[in-house]
Amino acid sequence: MTGPGSEIENLIALMARLPGLGPRSARRAVLHLIRKRGAQLAPLADAMAEVAEKARECISCGNIGTAEICDICAAHKRANGQLCVVGEVADLWAMERAGIFAGRYFVLGGVLSALDNIGPDDLRIPLLRRRVADESVREVILALNATVDGQTTAHYIADQLEGVEVTSLAQGVPIGGELDYLDDGTISAALRARKAF
Amino acid sequence: MTGPGSEIENLIALMARLPGLGPRSARRAVLHLIRKRGAQLAPLADAMAEVAEKARECISCGNIGTAEICDICAAHKRANGQLCVVGEVADLWAMERAGIFAGRYFVLGGVLSALDNIGPDDLRIPLLRRRVADESVREVILALNATVDGQTTAHYIADQLEGVEVTSLAQGVPIGGELDYLDDGTISAALRARKAF
Repeated sequence: MTGPGSEIENLIALMARLPGLGPRSARRAVLHLIRKRGAQLAPLADAMAEVAEKARECISCGNIGTAEICDICAAHKRANGQLCVVGEVADLWAMERAGIFAGRYFVLGGVLSALDNIGPDDLRIPLLRRRVADESVREVILALNATVDGQTTAHYIADQLEGVEVTSLAQGVPIGGELDYLDDGTISAALRARKAF
Repeated sequence: MTGPGSEIENLIALMARLPGLGPRSARRAVLHLIRKRGAQLAPLADAMAEVAEKARECISCGNIGTAEICDICAAHKRANGQLCVVGEVADLWAMERAGIFAGRYFVLGGVLSALDNIGPDDLRIPLLRRRVADESVREVILALNATVDGQTTAHYIADQLEGVEVTSLAQGVPIGGELDYLDDGTISAALRARKAF
């Protein structure tokens, strides 16, 4: 077989390693980019080079941005005494898209997982304890996934924190959710947490 | 909402325009790339810049590669009198992966489509006729999609070519295909084209 040229094959191979893309979708994406090489491929190459150079973790919360201290940690008005603990940067971004939380964040960098062999030492829990102590945090809000690992992690962190209120996101029927399509665990949780109408 | 920094947002927006990726998978891919910025993001940026600069269409067949004449058109041993007509470059690559065709190709650059307003003048049919005449082609093999547009295009091209044998890919049950899962059209085509066992 005669391939499309080693540079193009190399690009396809690198694209195929992205999450959500396989060899076929990588080929499609690369052909698409080559057709629009001026409008899309060259700008994408530049954007990647720029991010590769500038992206870094916020030394305070673990968010990814382009500054040593991310915009959220740098914003004084967000020092409202609330600290939201999330597993991953993607979860922090999801919270921000919801646009309702006005405090600061702490990214654990994962959740406890016996299966993946991730223990307390692999997360950034000592750093979390220090922030809670240093920044006069009133409330730690645990915004972890409603999975076994996420909830195990939530319990572990709640045990580790003293002298501060610890809350967690409510569990229940998602907005737009239809009972017939929900799993039993969600319905049980929603029933247990029922509230006055 | 405070975003992850304009360079990162810009990269996510560009990635989200790739076929097969949306905003969510673009965010996931970018976070993945930032985590592996040395091993993946920087090489990907370089690979894209290199392809943006070097990629071009073969002036003979329309294949995409990095030379004026693609490897297939440049290979003398592939001048065997067979010319395979495909719709898109992706189809050419699919044929090459099958590894069974030893001749040369011609990429139409699409198929006739009343819906998308693509007529004969939008394809490269005059160029195809010239190649058939100039290169002593014995057989033109139409390898077009088994869709209405693909087959309409096949008929149109067959009408346009004179003095050369025109064949097309067989239609039938795909390898591994189960009759119960095949559409009626495929079963009908396979029955009409049945052969001695």
